[in-house]
Amino acid sequence: MPSQRFYTLTASCPDRVGIVARVSSFIAELGGWILETNLHADREANRYFMRIEVKADSLPFLLAEFRDRFRPLAEDFEMKWKINDSAVKKRVVLMVSKQEHCLYDLLARWQSKELDIEIPCVISNHDTFRGFVEWHGIPFHHVPVTPDNKAGAYAEVKRIFDDVRGDTMVLARYMQILSPELCAAYPGRILNIHHSFLPSFVGAKPYHQAYQRGVKLIGATCHYVTEELDQGPIIEQDVIRVDHSDSPEDMVRYGKDIEKTVLARGLRFHLEDRVLVHGNKTVVFR
Amino acid sequence: MPSQRFYTLTASCPDRVGIVARVSSFIAELGGWILETNLHADREANRYFMRIEVKADSLPFLLAEFRDRFRPLAEDFEMKWKINDSAVKKRVVLMVSKQEHCLYDLLARWQSKELDIEIPCVISNHDTFRGFVEWHGIPFHHVPVTPDNKAGAYAEVKRIFDDVRGDTMVLARYMQILSPELCAAYPGRILNIHHSFLPSFVGAKPYHQAYQRGVKLIGATCHYVTEELDQGPIIEQDVIRVDHSDSPEDMVRYGKDIEKTVLARGLRFHLEDRVLVHGNKTVVFR
Amino acid sequence: MPSQRFYTLTASCPDRVGIVARVSSFIAELGGWILETNLHADREANRYFMRIEVKADSLPFLLAEFRDRFRPLAEDFEMKWKINDSAVKKRVVLMVSKQEHCLYDLLARWQSKELDIEIPCVISNHDTFRGFVEWHGIPFHHVPVTPDNKAGAYAEVKRIFDDVRGDTMVLARYMQILSPELCAAYPGRILNIHHSFLPSFVGAKPYHQAYQRGVKLIGATCHYVTEELDQGPIIEQDVIRVDHSDSPEDMVRYGKDIEKTVLARGLRFHLEDRVLVHGNKTVVFR
Amino acid sequence: MPSQRFYTLTASCPDRVGIVARVSSFIAELGGWILETNLHADREANRYFMRIEVKADSLPFLLAEFRDRFRPLAEDFEMKWKINDSAVKKRVVLMVSKQEHCLYDLLARWQSKELDIEIPCVISNHDTFRGFVEWHGIPFHHVPVTPDNKAGAYAEVKRIFDDVRGDTMVLARYMQILSPELCAAYPGRILNIHHSFLPSFVGAKPYHQAYQRGVKLIGATCHYVTEELDQGPIIEQDVIRVDHSDSPEDMVRYGKDIEKTVLARGLRFHLEDRVLVHGNKTVVFR
Repeated sequence: MPSQRFYTLTASCPDRVGIVARVSSFIAELGGWILETNLHADREANRYFMRIEVKADSLPFLLAEFRDRFRPLAEDFEMKWKINDSAVKKRVVLMVSKQEHCLYDLLARWQSKELDIEIPCVISNHDTFRGFVEWHGIPFHHVPVTPDNKAGAYAEVKRIFDDVRGDTMVLARYMQILSPELCAAYPGRILNIHHSFLPSFVGAKPYHQAYQRGVKLIGATCHYVTEELDQGPIIEQDVIRVDHSDSPEDMVRYGKDIEKTVLARGLRFHLEDRVLVHGNKTVVFR
Repeated sequence: MPSQRFYTLTASCPDRVGIVARVSSFIAELGGWILETNLHADREANRYFMRIEVKADSLPFLLAEFRDRFRPLAEDFEMKWKINDSAVKKRVVLMVSKQEHCLYDLLARWQSKELDIEIPCVISNHDTFRGFVEWHGIPFHHVPVTPDNKAGAYAEVKRIFDDVRGDTMVLARYMQILSPELCAAYPGRILNIHHSFLPSFVGAKPYHQAYQRGVKLIGATCHYVTEELDQGPIIEQDVIRVDHSDSPEDMVRYGKDIEKTVLARGLRFHLEDRVLVHGNKTVVFR
Repeated sequence: MPSQRFYTLTASCPDRVGIVARVSSFIAELGGWILETNLHADREANRYFMRIEVKADSLPFLLAEFRDRFRPLAEDFEMKWKINDSAVKKRVVLMVSKQEHCLYDLLARWQSKELDIEIPCVISNHDTFRGFVEWHGIPFHHVPVTPDNKAGAYAEVKRIFDDVRGDTMVLARYMQILSPELCAAYPGRILNIHHSFLPSFVGAKPYHQAYQRGVKLIGATCHYVTEELDQGPIIEQDVIRVDHSDSPEDMVRYGKDIEKTVLARGLRFHLEDRVLVHGNKTVVFR
Repeated sequence: MPSQRFYTLTASCPDRVGIVARVSSFIAELGGWILETNLHADREANRYFMRIEVKADSLPFLLAEFRDRFRPLAEDFEMKWKINDSAVKKRVVLMVSKQEHCLYDLLARWQSKELDIEIPCVISNHDTFRGFVEWHGIPFHHVPVTPDNKAGAYAEVKRIFDDVRGDTMVLARYMQILSPELCAAYPGRILNIHHSFLPSFVGAKPYHQAYQRGVKLIGATCHYVTEELDQGPIIEQDVIRVDHSDSPEDMVRYGKDIEKTVLARGLRFHLEDRVLVHGNKTVVFR
């Protein structure tokens, strides 16, 4: 929980000699105080990844100028990059259905400022949690999804998300499959929690699949949503032990504990700009 | 989550030949259908522990008569025993202070019927969560605790607990030390979650102690409260990995995830009569 | 590590009222002292599973008579059953290729009597470990396997296994696929360690598959060998955390630590008659 | 498992602006290709830690000149530093008593080149493993330790260690307490594996202590040896789950699996110059 304001620079580029030297010299010459640095060279892809936190008040100018000054360097190295400001809270829209565990968990983290975000609204295909969400002072939108209205429903979700200027959409056990259009509209910005240790048990009822196979551990996976179901880049995973005495219903129950924890960890990595996507894989600077 | 009504017999007694034979024959002769059996012989203590679930409607009478018929057998074996009815919900009083993670977590489990309990009230030494608790339709009691009023405050807590006919008291990150009288009044009925892997880091600020020692894992412990601080019988523990980059504040944050999970697991074991205490140790039939 | 001799009765049968009563009364009437009891009712399959350890010298006769006396009861309940004697060491044949981690690990456990077994021989498709194995006083058989001689090679393996009166065959990172005939000859008696968290990454180079998919945990699975590759009943699994900085070679290296641990745990469960197979699943009484 | 030769620079110094810029520019100007970089700012201690791997053949000179050229920069920043060459194998002396699990495990890793080290000798206070060690072509020294000859025995150990030009001494379940003189002679170069999750259960028979306290997890700790028993800087720890049915002997057995794994992991971090000690704590760049 950093109490001081800082800028987070994340970048990736083709690997070559001198990247760190140029970037760190650029920051040092401006007097920038580095709080945290993470660097990774992917030898297979020959690509370099970095994440650097710079204390905001150690720089002699504001964010916009920091970006302007960094731009030429970034172009020299053909970087994909961004610089975010810790003082600008991210706007996270939650999507839920009828299960409470992830919703309660995320709202508790938001209440305690553990997740220092704005939640401009919660969207659900059921009206179940309206009262609970509104009690927290958060607007609630009921957007029913039926086999017949999918296109219309997801157009409405998109309209709301854009309207509230959402940065990130979180499927917190949202039990519908988003439309391909919606997936494509926000690449790397929609997080899902899948209730299995992917790539095992893709699709529906993974705990029942796990029960039938007789596995001794069950898992959960937080990943970015892409158009291909449960195939997006994995951010975080975890597992929990089960045994022969556990029914599918027991597994559903145990699974909730890792679902909410894995989703919260993955979301935090995402919000702190610790996740860099390359192809269908992620670099996660913990 | 069994949907059918059942009786849970738990017992412990000095170990000798024939205990299981007598108990299981007793049940079989009544036509009792056993759903689950757990048995343990503690060789060091020469003591036998058991937990048996019997389908309620497989017996030709009700709970009171089941108890009456079992009593002579129990006396023969000098058992400490009880029989509970799954249809009678336990009454769990939550004690909280100013941290939300365990409170939100337990109320989500209660809302979803994962914890099939009554929560007759929440007691707190602060008024912080009154609105949240009352929104759930649960009475909230603010019982301030100051250095000067401890005896009075805990007398009031006891009065409320007795008044609502509480079965179990859960210290869900309640940041005060109960009075010895209160501890002594409800042996094996008050659960605490301590934010360290006991017996390491007893007492205050365990995460700061952990940081100073440079440990690579931090933990949480759910235990029964006894008069000796953080020394009661341990029900459940877990740990999470940390490293040199984690500040004490980071540890506090990570720790919350295991605190709430360990407390919920320990509480579930307790509520399902899976925990048998002997001396300062527990048998936990998962 | 029990130092006293005991008999282990394992059985499964259709579930009905009175199974435990009959079995435990039978033992009690003989004066049998029960050391450990494990019971499990599979509600889906409506089948009952049990494992009971009885102190040998508490019974007034020897193993053969124990079996004879138990047989009628077993027939009444249509049991699949067996009774083993802890004093009769199991004969375990190890199959290895060119990787040492599981071989060293198992021999260390055998040396220290942690695994109280006979190892009548080691069979390998390479001559690499002859010296190491023979130094331990264990015969070593080099049975080369080529695309052309598979049938002959596995006939030779079978001949050796039968010749040394093997109870259990352990594929300790044996890098060949057994012939269907061999698999079929010893159902529930051949254990394999697969280097992935099954059902993910069946077949060859699972760590490379895991790397390509970008998973955040890798695993190992100990299972009984059946004719269908990597599809047999799972006995034990575990996982270990990896991240973006780990190459496939790093994963291979980390993976070894869970492979040997998971294999050793699975083997121990098997040797202690703690694994009961039903269909393609296992009951494992830890 | 890097197949190419590289130099590893590790350094720590008071934190200030420009450290990374200076070091990375220094390397870039020489054309040095960086394989891996790890950086850490300890805000409490106001100290900066780094570890950088540079491809050897990307530099236009050899190690000695690399060191000479780096020295002035290091002095400017008041660094504690060193540069090691991956082509120079470290010389690791193993100390053992009568338990085989860590010895077999380390020798298997050495045989397979997973640990790419020299083992110039094994020293033991018993003659038990002479044959096994010598079979591997490694000299074995039996140095008995009795209450009366401690000073002499440890003088002999020191003589042997110096004689074989040992870099690192590993107490692989060596069941004696080293003399203060020996501890002081090699700070940060002697690794021990303690069979508990420190700081719990310091000293003798930790598993029995754990059994008495009724903990639900047991652990192992790899740490540097200092004069104060079991109080040195912690490098790595792990735990494993136990329950009421586990005797102290069971815990001893399970514990071996984490002891050997934790020791091997800690040793690898140490050998790869991933462990930087500051005060009584470690920075471990995984």
